[in-house]
Amino acid sequence: MNTLLAGGAGFIGGHLADALIKEGHRVICVDNLYLGTMENIKHLLGREQFLFYQSDLDDYPAVNEIFKKEKIDYVFHLAANSNIQVSANYPKIELKNTLLSTFNLLECMRVYDVRSLFFASTSAVYGEKPEIDMSELSGPLEPISYYGSAKLASEAFIFAFSHMNDLHSLVFRFPNVIGDRLTHGVVFDFIKKLRANSKELEILGDGTQSKPYMHVSDLVKGIMRFKDEVPQGVTVYNIGVETQTSVSKIADIICEQMGLKDVEYKYTGGKIGWKGDVPTFKYDLSKIYSAGWHADLTSDEAVLRTVREVL
Amino acid sequence: MNTLLAGGAGFIGGHLADALIKEGHRVICVDNLYLGTMENIKHLLGREQFLFYQSDLDDYPAVNEIFKKEKIDYVFHLAANSNIQVSANYPKIELKNTLLSTFNLLECMRVYDVRSLFFASTSAVYGEKPEIDMSELSGPLEPISYYGSAKLASEAFIFAFSHMNDLHSLVFRFPNVIGDRLTHGVVFDFIKKLRANSKELEILGDGTQSKPYMHVSDLVKGIMRFKDEVPQGVTVYNIGVETQTSVSKIADIICEQMGLKDVEYKYTGGKIGWKGDVPTFKYDLSKIYSAGWHADLTSDEAVLRTVREVL
Repeated sequence: MNTLLAGGAGFIGGHLADALIKEGHRVICVDNLYLGTMENIKHLLGREQFLFYQSDLDDYPAVNEIFKKEKIDYVFHLAANSNIQVSANYPKIELKNTLLSTFNLLECMRVYDVRSLFFASTSAVYGEKPEIDMSELSGPLEPISYYGSAKLASEAFIFAFSHMNDLHSLVFRFPNVIGDRLTHGVVFDFIKKLRANSKELEILGDGTQSKPYMHVSDLVKGIMRFKDEVPQGVTVYNIGVETQTSVSKIADIICEQMGLKDVEYKYTGGKIGWKGDVPTFKYDLSKIYSAGWHADLTSDEAVLRTVREVL
Repeated sequence: MNTLLAGGAGFIGGHLADALIKEGHRVICVDNLYLGTMENIKHLLGREQFLFYQSDLDDYPAVNEIFKKEKIDYVFHLAANSNIQVSANYPKIELKNTLLSTFNLLECMRVYDVRSLFFASTSAVYGEKPEIDMSELSGPLEPISYYGSAKLASEAFIFAFSHMNDLHSLVFRFPNVIGDRLTHGVVFDFIKKLRANSKELEILGDGTQSKPYMHVSDLVKGIMRFKDEVPQGVTVYNIGVETQTSVSKIADIICEQMGLKDVEYKYTGGKIGWKGDVPTFKYDLSKIYSAGWHADLTSDEAVLRTVREVL
């Protein structure tokens, strides 16, 4: 099966590429290397089942060329600017890398009659609703980051394209995903900071911000588990873990694993790390649980394993 | 007050321009004349309070020039491809005219620190949910037309831009709006067809498709009523009428007003007029009613008045 993997050189994309190849897919990886790196896919280069295009997905003629040439059967779309802090001062990057990539892929699917789509959405589509466990049926969705907006906008187009062209679309709303090869986020930042200065650690906010962290291996297992059972239309799943880990706890785990003692935590204060951040967040996961999927690792275990993999 | 009216040469835009000028606004009308016409604004050309730019709103540098020059205080964004049947075969027009227009206006508002926005959204964001009276809190939103997708995508960006830049944004989800100067839709089509052939009338679907039709005068009154009372963030209102009019009833009203008897109705059959069409639809209007607004005309009255205005 010819599988287009958009964002395949990204942190999650590289892991999904491994799993797809293991299952016998021919993976056509498309990535502009804005956040993705050759490092993430270097072990796959040269393999017969793996093809790499460095291309901007907001460039319609370029995407069209790939579809024309490769006879795509399935599109996995993970390409995005996933660094929310960067886009806070540069919203256009979300339009370009997160939304237009979706639109162009959908348009090519329509033109070339490709019917199967997996789309990486995000908890950020929900916005800030600390009082509710967000389920797939929850509304209204009021994203507070440009990233969350571009993902919700992508979902919006997926609904119409799926209805109009009989697509089978699977949408997972990802939580914070961590693991080997991660490129940004709090775990990555803390390790980087502590390597530069092992005496003190600046922590944005008051450290109590808690989120569910999921290990990339659990995410990939979830995608592989459901990807061939998608009915016509759009199926949306929250995917994640029920447990959460606070920012301070992450700092504790990292310090312990690095063998650092008496690190002084310097809190910048306030309830949120930065504007557009959602300080606490909780999913209702009953839909994906009913479908027979559970993560193997808790949030704390995911953090611990990631720290060990990254160090 | 310098008011940018995007889509100001459109059917609704022209009526809103009249109301804004009457209230003392300086109206900077921007329209690419894709659906808008000079006919709709010819009575305003040459007036000191009215300025017209023919410009594509998906052209960022062009939009930026207007903001730089005109010191905008308030943006009314009504520009869109509102002809859903056209975009069914050409989704890119919704990306270009409906979504990118929103993104570029929001980006210019961010850059030039413009804080007040009115956005024309649509009932099409809800998708097909005949069993529910859709309220502003309803979820999930699953548009089935590219038009509905582009409007929902626009709303998604309005949420993040409003949060990040302290905008005061008012979003009305329009129903079918009709009245003098309308350019498409069932009332327009039937009159056109009957003028060409007064013996028979082709009716898409089985004629029972029923929707609420609202007169443009009621819509404009609603916008003018709420536009200066918008708190920080995004305020969403369904706006419409509770009554509905079936397609067959519309045909009856038009035939009567045109003095035609014994017109043979030829139904194409089926429950929907065309793919992407939502055959029946009902709003929960309690939010806007609680805020003290009601339409003056019922759906049938709106159809009747429109037919009289157009004939």
